Amino acid sequence: MMRIDFLSIFPEMFEGVLHHSIMKKAQEKKAVEFNVINFRDYADNKHQTVDDYPYGGGAGMVLKPQPIFDAVHSIKSTSSADPRIILVCPQGERFNQQKAEELAGAEHLVFICGHYEGYDERIREHLVTDEISIGDFVLTGGELPSMTIADSVVRLLPGVLGNEDSPVQDSFSSGLLEHPHYTRPADFRGLKVPDTLISGNHKLIEEWREEESLRRTVERRPDLLESFELSDRQKKVLEKLKKN
Amino acid sequence: MMRIDFLSIFPEMFEGVLHHSIMKKAQEKKAVEFNVINFRDYADNKHQTVDDYPYGGGAGMVLKPQPIFDAVHSIKSTSSADPRIILVCPQGERFNQQKAEELAGAEHLVFICGHYEGYDERIREHLVTDEISIGDFVLTGGELPSMTIADSVVRLLPGVLGNEDSPVQDSFSSGLLEHPHYTRPADFRGLKVPDTLISGNHKLIEEWREEESLRRTVERRPDLLESFELSDRQKKVLEKLKKN
Repeated sequence: MMRIDFLSIFPEMFEGVLHHSIMKKAQEKKAVEFNVINFRDYADNKHQTVDDYPYGGGAGMVLKPQPIFDAVHSIKSTSSADPRIILVCPQGERFNQQKAEELAGAEHLVFICGHYEGYDERIREHLVTDEISIGDFVLTGGELPSMTIADSVVRLLPGVLGNEDSPVQDSFSSGLLEHPHYTRPADFRGLKVPDTLISGNHKLIEEWREEESLRRTVERRPDLLESFELSDRQKKVLEKLKKN
Repeated sequence: MMRIDFLSIFPEMFEGVLHHSIMKKAQEKKAVEFNVINFRDYADNKHQTVDDYPYGGGAGMVLKPQPIFDAVHSIKSTSSADPRIILVCPQGERFNQQKAEELAGAEHLVFICGHYEGYDERIREHLVTDEISIGDFVLTGGELPSMTIADSVVRLLPGVLGNEDSPVQDSFSSGLLEHPHYTRPADFRGLKVPDTLISGNHKLIEEWREEESLRRTVERRPDLLESFELSDRQKKVLEKLKKN
């Protein structure tokens, strides 16, 4: 069973997410165990402060090393594995599906979630094993990106996703973007499903899907094609798309 | 006041996040109003199903157009603005700080959060104004990325972030990655703060920070330098860094 710990001074932020949907199901199936730990409880000063002014001056606050170091050491002392200590920050390695798969193979993940503050560099240098970014944007804290990463990892754990839950077709698993999907009714207030999809001709449907998947990738994410090995048929479809 | 609506069949997932920290504060300051709407309530079929099998066959389920169309129409009828209808999906435009700033200028945002399922293409084509991706990875639902985007937008609304909350220095606001931060103690279990930062010499401190910010950007995100206009001093620092 995987263990995931979140270190945060806003433990209540995790409640809705960890107790519903996939996260709830994964715990029930004993695929994962979650702990949310308020690292303020580890502050060894009288007022339990976890941050302080930055050396050298400037606006904002910086997370002190002591509460985080001691919380992580306490976690490590109860871990049967050598946990991955993850800092989510904009300077980190860009998170992607490959990284999700790599983390899904670990036994124990610990997410350090700062909030408003910067991190004392000694946390980054001497405690953290992975710095991960989910994108070039600024958030108030590490809680949401940590839960987001956890969601993408937990759904990959064996037994978590039943067939009924599996996405129609995951983007990125095939290397191309997904083709469009349609469901009933065939005519929704005048908006119609493409004839091919209701033709019952499986060969035509497969061709339509492949072509639409390629079209969408060319239009929206041509960069994905650079590392994708096209079949002969796909090459022909691509030629045709580029002509039009 | 900005209005943000989330359409989801897991409304409980939003509770922890919307009632704590920045989201709570932003509501108290009347900068934003949140509504979480279960679009299952809009399903016009007896069993309140919101998804169905895909035309053309294949695994997984697809969100039906009717509940989403009717939920969005109901929202629009009570909106004083022309809301942005946002679909978070891996095929969308990549979210970044510029997009956060653009959305922060809107009056009303509506996030459609699918869960497990694909979306009927008619939702995408005829209802949605913005398709946004937070990265090349697969999630169970749109709830976490929608809350993540909302966090990045809400913190930009006037009056939400007090000075005490402002990040030490936002990455991306300067165009370079942040320099390292340190706070007390100067010696933490043998790990020391760089001498310069405790020298009290503000000119040296500024130079150290600029150099470290450039160093980190060169090492981790050289792509950011392509669109960044370096000062003469920064060019010199960069030359020096490249030599070493």
